[in-house]
Formats: sequence, C-alpha cells, structure tokens
Amino acid sequence: MKSTKVSDTYSLKTELVLPNDTNNLGNLMGGKLLHWMDIISAISAQRASRRTVVTVAVDFVEFKAAIPLGAVVILEARVTRTFHTSLEVRIDVAFESLNTGERKESNVAYYTFVAVDQSGRPIPVTPIDPETEEEKQWYEEALYRREMRLVLAGRLKPQDANYIKKILGTS
Amino acid sequence: MKSTKVSDTYSLKTELVLPNDTNNLGNLMGGKLLHWMDIISAISAQRASRRTVVTVAVDFVEFKAAIPLGAVVILEARVTRTFHTSLEVRIDVAFESLNTGERKESNVAYYTFVAVDQSGRPIPVTPIDPETEEEKQWYEEALYRREMRLVLAGRLKPQDANYIKKILGTS
Amino acid sequence: MKSTKVSDTYSLKTELVLPNDTNNLGNLMGGKLLHWMDIISAISAQRASRRTVVTVAVDFVEFKAAIPLGAVVILEARVTRTFHTSLEVRIDVAFESLNTGERKESNVAYYTFVAVDQSGRPIPVTPIDPETEEEKQWYEEALYRREMRLVLAGRLKPQDANYIKKILGTS
Amino acid sequence: MKSTKVSDTYSLKTELVLPNDTNNLGNLMGGKLLHWMDIISAISAQRASRRTVVTVAVDFVEFKAAIPLGAVVILEARVTRTFHTSLEVRIDVAFESLNTGERKESNVAYYTFVAVDQSGRPIPVTPIDPETEEEKQWYEEALYRREMRLVLAGRLKPQDANYIKKILGTS
Amino acid sequence: MKSTKVSDTYSLKTELVLPNDTNNLGNLMGGKLLHWMDIISAISAQRASRRTVVTVAVDFVEFKAAIPLGAVVILEARVTRTFHTSLEVRIDVAFESLNTGERKESNVAYYTFVAVDQSGRPIPVTPIDPETEEEKQWYEEALYRREMRLVLAGRLKPQDANYIKKILGTS
Amino acid sequence: MKSTKVSDTYSLKTELVLPNDTNNLGNLMGGKLLHWMDIISAISAQRASRRTVVTVAVDFVEFKAAIPLGAVVILEARVTRTFHTSLEVRIDVAFESLNTGERKESNVAYYTFVAVDQSGRPIPVTPIDPETEEEKQWYEEALYRREMRLVLAGRLKPQDANYIKKILGTS
Repeated sequence: MKSTKVSDTYSLKTELVLPNDTNNLGNLMGGKLLHWMDIISAISAQRASRRTVVTVAVDFVEFKAAIPLGAVVILEARVTRTFHTSLEVRIDVAFESLNTGERKESNVAYYTFVAVDQSGRPIPVTPIDPETEEEKQWYEEALYRREMRLVLAGRLKPQDANYIKKILGTS
Repeated sequence: MKSTKVSDTYSLKTELVLPNDTNNLGNLMGGKLLHWMDIISAISAQRASRRTVVTVAVDFVEFKAAIPLGAVVILEARVTRTFHTSLEVRIDVAFESLNTGERKESNVAYYTFVAVDQSGRPIPVTPIDPETEEEKQWYEEALYRREMRLVLAGRLKPQDANYIKKILGTS
Repeated sequence: MKSTKVSDTYSLKTELVLPNDTNNLGNLMGGKLLHWMDIISAISAQRASRRTVVTVAVDFVEFKAAIPLGAVVILEARVTRTFHTSLEVRIDVAFESLNTGERKESNVAYYTFVAVDQSGRPIPVTPIDPETEEEKQWYEEALYRREMRLVLAGRLKPQDANYIKKILGTS
Repeated sequence: MKSTKVSDTYSLKTELVLPNDTNNLGNLMGGKLLHWMDIISAISAQRASRRTVVTVAVDFVEFKAAIPLGAVVILEARVTRTFHTSLEVRIDVAFESLNTGERKESNVAYYTFVAVDQSGRPIPVTPIDPETEEEKQWYEEALYRREMRLVLAGRLKPQDANYIKKILGTS
Repeated sequence: MKSTKVSDTYSLKTELVLPNDTNNLGNLMGGKLLHWMDIISAISAQRASRRTVVTVAVDFVEFKAAIPLGAVVILEARVTRTFHTSLEVRIDVAFESLNTGERKESNVAYYTFVAVDQSGRPIPVTPIDPETEEEKQWYEEALYRREMRLVLAGRLKPQDANYIKKILGTS
Repeated sequence: MKSTKVSDTYSLKTELVLPNDTNNLGNLMGGKLLHWMDIISAISAQRASRRTVVTVAVDFVEFKAAIPLGAVVILEARVTRTFHTSLEVRIDVAFESLNTGERKESNVAYYTFVAVDQSGRPIPVTPIDPETEEEKQWYEEALYRREMRLVLAGRLKPQDANYIKKILGTS
C-alpha cells in the first residue's frame, strides 16, 4: 500500500457571507460555518481515500471573531494522518473584509472521518506521508489529539493517556 | 441578580431525516446535525439570557452511529452553567428508527455562547441555579470543560490547568 | 391490535426565526410555518403508526399574530384519533419573544396523514386510546372535524353531516 | 376607490418536482406544496392590493394524489374577493406526468391575506369586480367561506352563521 | 414523427423576491435568477420532448436592471426549435414593482437542453412547428444562434460560420 | 490609480455534489453550477475592486459532461480585465471522480460584474495588470468578448464590431 502526500489532499473552499447565512446581528452563523467545514474536510478525506467518507468526530472549535455579511471566508483542509480506517482533517478558516481585503484568522478545526464501502462498512485507507516541517508536526500531534478524542469519548482512562501526561510533564 | 433554573432553559427539537439532509449513503450528514445542534442550543442560551446569543465554541463531538433516512432525531438542550457573559449548553442527541421506534443515543455535545447587546458587545448573564443531582454534576464539571477549552484555545498552559491535573491525579 | 396512547405520539419542535425564514416585514412567513407544522405532525403520525406517512389534508389554519425575527417558535403535535388507515394530528403553535420570554399562542392546526407501505399503498393503523379529559374531547370532536373534511372535500352532502347539524342544533 | 378585475390578479407558477422536494417515497412533500401555494397566492394578493401582504389564514386543503419526482406542478392563483383590509385568494393546483404530459387536478385551496403598510398595520384594499360566471360564483361563495373561517376561528357562533345554515337548508 | 407547437411548450413561472434571494444590496442575486431560468426552461423542454432533459448550454445573458426585494419576477419559457436530440428554449424575464405594478423587461435568455433516456443517453425529439410570425422568426434565428454556439464552443471555425457571415454582410 | 495583479484576484471553490444538488438522473443540475459560478466569480471581482459587485452578464456557457453525485467540483475564478466600472471574470470548472480522482474539464465561463457604491451606483475600478502569457492573452481577448457582448446586447451593430471582423478576416 503506497502512501498519500498531504499536499494531494489539500482542498480550498472560498465562500461569500450572504444574507441567507447570517444571524440576527448580520454575522455568519456558527452552524453554517460548521457545515461548510464539514463539506471541505469531507472532500479532503475523500481525496486521500478515494472512498465515500462519513464524519465521525469534530474536535473543539473556537470562533474567535464575528464574520460580517459581505466578508469572504476561506476554508483550507488537509488530511494530517490516517488511522487504519479513519482520517484526521485539519481545517484553517480565515476571512477577508469586503472593503480592505485585510485577512484575519477565524479558527482551526479538526474533523475525523471514516472511509466506508458501498454498504457503509469501514475500509482501510492509504497512510499519509508528511513532507514539510509543519506537516510532520501535525502528523506527530495527531496521536495526541487522537488520545484526547478517546479520553473525551470515554474509551480511554485519563490516567492511561500517555501523550497527554507527557505534555503535562506528569508521566 | 436572580438566578435561572436549568429546567427553564430546557429546549427540545424533533426532526425527521429527509432526502435533503442525507449524504451519498442515505444517512444524515454530520454538517446538518451540527447545524441543528447550533439552533437548539442557541434557543436554550437565549432562554437563559433573554439576549441575542452568538456561538463562540463547540466542544468535541463524536457521531457514534449512522442516522438513516426516515429516522426521527431528538435534540435536547439545557444551559449547564454561565460564566459572566458566556453560557455553556449541553445537547443530548438521540434517534428513533422509523419502523420499530427503538431509540438510540447518538451523541452529547457542548456549545458555548456569548450573550450580546444590539451592538454585538458581550453583556453579563444571570447565573444558573442547578437543582437535581444531574444538573449539579453538569454544573460542577463545567469548570473542567471550561479549563479544557482554555487549554485547547491556547489561553491556559496545560501545567496551570488545575482541574485537569486533579482528574489525572497529578496535582 | 393494541392501542396507542396520545402521549406516546407527543412531538415537540422548537425553532428560532432566522433572517432566512422571514418576509419583507421581518416576520415569519406563513409558508415556512406550514412547512414546520407538516414535519412535526408527520413525526407524530409516524410515531403512532410506525409507518411512512403521507400528508392528505390540512384543516383551516389561522395565523393570529405576526411572529418576529429572533422569536422562539414552539410546535407541539399529538395524534388525536385514527380512522382505519388515516391519522388526525393536532398541532399547537406558540412563540416567545426574545427579550421578555413572554409566550403567546399563535395557532392550532389539524393535519391528516395516511400510513402507507413501501409501495405507497394505505395500510391500517393502530387505534388511539385517549386518557385525559382533554384527549377524550379531541378524540370525540375528531368525528366532527372528519365530517367537515368530507363535506369540504365534496364527498358528503351538508344535509347528511349529522355531527355538524347536531352542533348547529338543527338535526 | 376603483375596482380590480380578477384577471388582473391571475398569477401562475410552474414548478418541477426535484429530489430536494420529495419525501421518503419520492413524492412531493405536502409542506413544500403548502409553501409554493403561499408564494403564488401572496403574489396574487399583492397584485390586487399593491401592498405588502401577510398570510392570515389557510382554508381546508386536501391532497388528492401523490405527485411524483419529475412531475410538473402548475399553481394558478386569483383573488376572488376582498373584505376591507383582507383578500381571499383561490389556488388551483394540477400536475403533469413527465412522460405522457397527462394533466391531473391535485387540489384547490383558499389562502387569506391582509394588506399592510410599512409598519405592518392593516390598510384598506380596492374591491374586486368579478366578470365571468365562474368569478361571480367564487365572489358569492367567498361570503360563505368567510363565515366558515369566523366559525372555525371561534369568532362567530355556528347558530349565527346564516350562510352555512342556508346551505344546510336549516335557516 | 409529428410536430409540437411552440404554444404547447409555453411555461410560466412567477416568483416573489424574498430576503433569501437577495445580495448585500437587497436586490435579486444573478445566480438565483439563473437557477429559476434553468427550472422553467427545463419544464418547457420537458413538455416538448416528454423526456428527462439535461442543460447543455446557456447563451449570453445580460441583466439590465436591479430587481429589488418584494418585486414580482415573471419568467416565460418556450421551445423555439429542436435539433435532433437537443432543444433551444427562449426565456423572457420581466419584473413588476410591488407598489406601482409597473412591469419592466429584465432580460432574454436562451438555454439549450438534450433529451435523454433513463441511462442518460441522448434520444431524438419531435420537431417544433412554429405558427406565429414571432415564432417563425425565433425558429429561423435559432440556426444563427446554434452556429454561434458551435463557434464559441470551438467546434466550428468562424470563417465557416455561414449565417454569421451573412448577417455581417461578408459572405 | 495603481493596478491589480490577476493572481491577487484568483479565487478557488471546491464543492461536493450532494443529493440536494442533483437532477432526476443523479447528476449536478445546471442551475446549481451556474449559481456556484456566480458566487466564486463575485468573490474574484470583489477582491479586484474592494467593492460590492453586481452580476451584469454571463457569456455563453457549455456544459460538456454530466457531473455525477459524489464528484468533487473545482471552480477557479480570475479577473481578466476591467472596463471603467465593470470587471470580466473567467471561471474554469473541472471535476474529479470519487473513486479514481481522475480530473476532467467541465467548462469555461465568463461573468461580468459592475462595482457599486452603497447606493448601488457604478463606481470606477482599479485596472488589471496581466503578467503571464496566459493572462496577457485573456486580457487581449477580453476586448473581443466585450464586443461580442455589445453586439449580443444590441448596443453595437455587427458591421461595427471591428475585433469580430478582424477575427473573421473580413475587416
């Protein structure tokens, strides 16, 4: 089984905040952004697996700034690492103001997908081969995030979470 | 400032999975469920604050099961605790099969909102007064989840995360 | 064939009026509310029949009040009675203002569904067993509403509408 | 105040049933059709009043036939009569099969609107002047339907409903 | 193979510009109008062919005027001519102001469709039989527009475009 | 007035064809693609002008291939040239199959926008400065496409269309 480059999974989605996407304050609704992130990260996971993919987890997401009507939203997704049948995707979200073009970071998110066959059964995926320093760091830290997911999902006891303990300097 | 009961913030949303909501496998899309959770938790936070609320964070969400076309989805939201201008909302999601009515848990999620005035500026909210044992536990654990958010958002160093360390038995 | 309790068919849907749902005056569109009522009453009918259900009739609906942007809309549905393959669902709609939380009645509606098999053919449904006084009254009056439907649909002559004549004191 | 011809309010909407509009059986959802009827009847009422209009009531609607995916739906709306600030609109719905073009009646519906000024306050509308025999019959029967609405809305006692009693032959 | 009259393919769609359909200036979005034109012209092509139809080309479209929120949009579609498996549809778009009812032309567009069988393979369609002077002119000029499409699609060299050269007076 | 580079206006949108976007054959609807092209080209025009932009024209679009459910659609937009208050945007659309990742060209389109101030009045835009050979060719040919638009819009007589005549070798 050959490996996939991170850059082959890179997927970009640019959106315009229209009246349809806003809350009562005229800013982008959180639910809409979560939906856009789901689509672009699914595309990235699909490009890595060449399979239909299903969202299985969304890590902590923080919305740092209100994104106003008329702003351009930029969503960049990349698969950081695979785990047998699952894939972790990192999404970087930024936005540009209409008038100045100034770009601000909105948030980073991690969505996890499982690749499935036509009956919806999980199926193994090609491993990821990180190349740049940044990709290697994402790849390495994916183990830590995965451990966090297992702890948060109640499938791993915090005291058995080795990566987390190492980071806390308590192992 | 008087307090709000958890039960006064209880909000229920029942949805039917229609063709419009499904992915290529005929199951509910993750992005759609994230959007429904955003709406029902915003309603719960609005009921606690009597203010327009803005989504500022979504904690780890795990989708345990595929929810098929025709299933009934039940979303229950409650405010668990407030922190000056922010509110944490817990959402319990379950679904019923069309034919048997059997109900299965789908997932639990925590969304955080900030109450804002008409200019979009944060504004203090009434504290929550937990009554039942379950509500008191959610209230207590909200401190731990908040600390997690601060760590994950990079605004608190893991070694200063007292609640997390206590849980790990490392403080 | 055992019977179904009204309370087992109770279904609740809470919605937030977003810009997307409003007309040129910034109030909830009638068509959108009719659509929400269709979904929640279909869920209630599905819960009573454990079958796919198809909308066959909507009784007179009156929209008493304008529901503004930002309001919370509460839709409660219950099956009141079944007639061989069809089910009558009562929907009570109310709304809360964003700032005061004051709740006002919007309207009551009755939707009728037919339960169908996979080929779309009507199929008998379990009868309803009313328990409370209110449920018994709905159950009883369902005969009158059904007669109205038959008259309005041109399948019963007004002079043969015994319940209606009794109510008018003319039988 | 001059009068408006029924034919000046005639509005036609032709729609194609797409996957997006269907239920689990692949037929047009009732809620979608109710929404389309709301839009075309609002256009008709707007043409008669030259004002923003708000839906205030929907009379009994019966869906006689399942409208399948790919069918063409034809909605024809006309204002039948006005009552000071309100307008009654009749909608005739039919559909054509994709392959044979055979046209079948689906249903007739009556929506009632109120014309409003920019603050949302009711405002008088120009009366309708029926010309053809059919228009005159609709105009005449509008009084009966209006009385039905008042009875169904609980604002008129059945025993005071003179038109209904006349039709029942009991006055 | 018998022929189809243009009038048998006439299809009318009337829409109301709602908040949902507008851009940041409160006017109808171009993309929404292109979508409405696609639906009404597909209906017209379907009526001529009694087949599922697929959009294959859209000719030059010019949006001459901003269509404001609350305006009524009128789209009229007619098949002008068929070419073996394809059909050209002309769409005339106009709009009425809410308050005055004054009607203005918005634009004319030509969409081309191919009729397909259930496997999506092109299938021959009944020829069109123009009756009025206007229909005959559209029928005649369809050859010129088709030649333009072939040139613009790079499948015909400009110097071989006989109709275009004739119009330019250069043949 | 300084100039804008073509590369500064480059905008990319990646979409997944979901059930919601398909016609009765399970392929992407033309109207949906026209809508996506409108959004991404508006973003590109907005980036060049730093103004709200309004779609004023769409050139001939040919849909060469059916894009199936589950495919990834890639839309790339660039401003090719500006004309006082208007901007021409070129959109290149391609799609990848889910399973093989093979990428195919779908179509090229040109949308024209006008930059407007807050009252919707046209306002001059910064000229474009092409750098690469390809950009220079697009820039040059934009004059020819503009002439075509003027001819097609009936604002220039074919015999006065100098660029077209030069191409036909008839000037």
